[in-house]
Amino acid sequence: MIREFIVRARKARTDPFFNLNDLPGSGGRMDLVARCISSALFVSENLRKDTIVHVVLEGPSRPPRIVTFYGETLRKVAPDERNIASHIKIALEKGLNLKTGEEIDVSPGIKISKKSWESLIKEKQNECKLFYLHSKGERIGNIDLEKYDHVCFILGDHKGMPKKSEQLLKKLNVERISLGRVTYFASHSITIAHYELDKRIF
Amino acid sequence: MIREFIVRARKARTDPFFNLNDLPGSGGRMDLVARCISSALFVSENLRKDTIVHVVLEGPSRPPRIVTFYGETLRKVAPDERNIASHIKIALEKGLNLKTGEEIDVSPGIKISKKSWESLIKEKQNECKLFYLHSKGERIGNIDLEKYDHVCFILGDHKGMPKKSEQLLKKLNVERISLGRVTYFASHSITIAHYELDKRIF
Repeated sequence: MIREFIVRARKARTDPFFNLNDLPGSGGRMDLVARCISSALFVSENLRKDTIVHVVLEGPSRPPRIVTFYGETLRKVAPDERNIASHIKIALEKGLNLKTGEEIDVSPGIKISKKSWESLIKEKQNECKLFYLHSKGERIGNIDLEKYDHVCFILGDHKGMPKKSEQLLKKLNVERISLGRVTYFASHSITIAHYELDKRIF
Repeated sequence: MIREFIVRARKARTDPFFNLNDLPGSGGRMDLVARCISSALFVSENLRKDTIVHVVLEGPSRPPRIVTFYGETLRKVAPDERNIASHIKIALEKGLNLKTGEEIDVSPGIKISKKSWESLIKEKQNECKLFYLHSKGERIGNIDLEKYDHVCFILGDHKGMPKKSEQLLKKLNVERISLGRVTYFASHSITIAHYELDKRIF
């Protein structure tokens, strides 16, 4: 089964001019973005080769940018926030002058594109089963995730999802899925989603 | 229910002379320690007031040191690795000259002591139900965690647990509990343990 995650970070910088010593402030919560990537791709001593994570960055000064990490081909990335953020910084540097819709390779297992969150969702809708992590969804424990070959989880950030995006998800009939009554960080939600899939498969 | 976590970091520095710009190297995987604390204490917009996390540091140059974070009283700590590591650094600075068994307050919700992992385990054995996270344990889904008022999860680090420690846990009849066949990072294991408890309670 292929597992994808789409993380949205509405304040995260879209140019490389942030300080690795201040990811929360100068990076627009780039720490949170890095933690999501770490949770999506790493297990003890290994990368999750079946996993792809897209981070949709929408802060200043070049929104939007999507940086995608592929577990299968990724090399030389460590799980700490600073290391991951340094790879995002390189991607943003290389992607400074992208045109809308354009995508380029940054390094093995990392790509950057200038594409909106909405375009990515519509694209993925045709490729796999989408789930929107939402407190009002069906509990994940009640959903037969194992029957899908390819799933993609959509996560909001700490600022929540804009109304327009909620409407798109509704229009596309994207199923809501809930992790229970506690509201978790996006990075923790990714860990839990992986765990729920692992439980069913292994 | 009170939730405690004991994380062991055998290479993590026990003096404040590490660089916040290089937590994995100069800090002896202090990034991993920080992620465990972040996973233990934070949920979206909030601290987990019912949670205590002990990190047992055993690297150079003053082993052992235990830094304990109390969700109930903690103030001004952010979930990013660098911020948490800066609090550990301050604790190690204040605890440079501790005598064996001594414990001091560092700031609201943070204490440091010079105590071994073994002493901490023996202490906790009298206070609460201990579980040792281990691949060969009973699956967490099969254990009635909700019947306990106070639980404490013991986690190894990426270097595994020394034989002597395994023997102590065996002698004390500490129950082994498993998260399944995948070996997770300690920080991810903490998120999953919390999730399993949350599911039963909320």
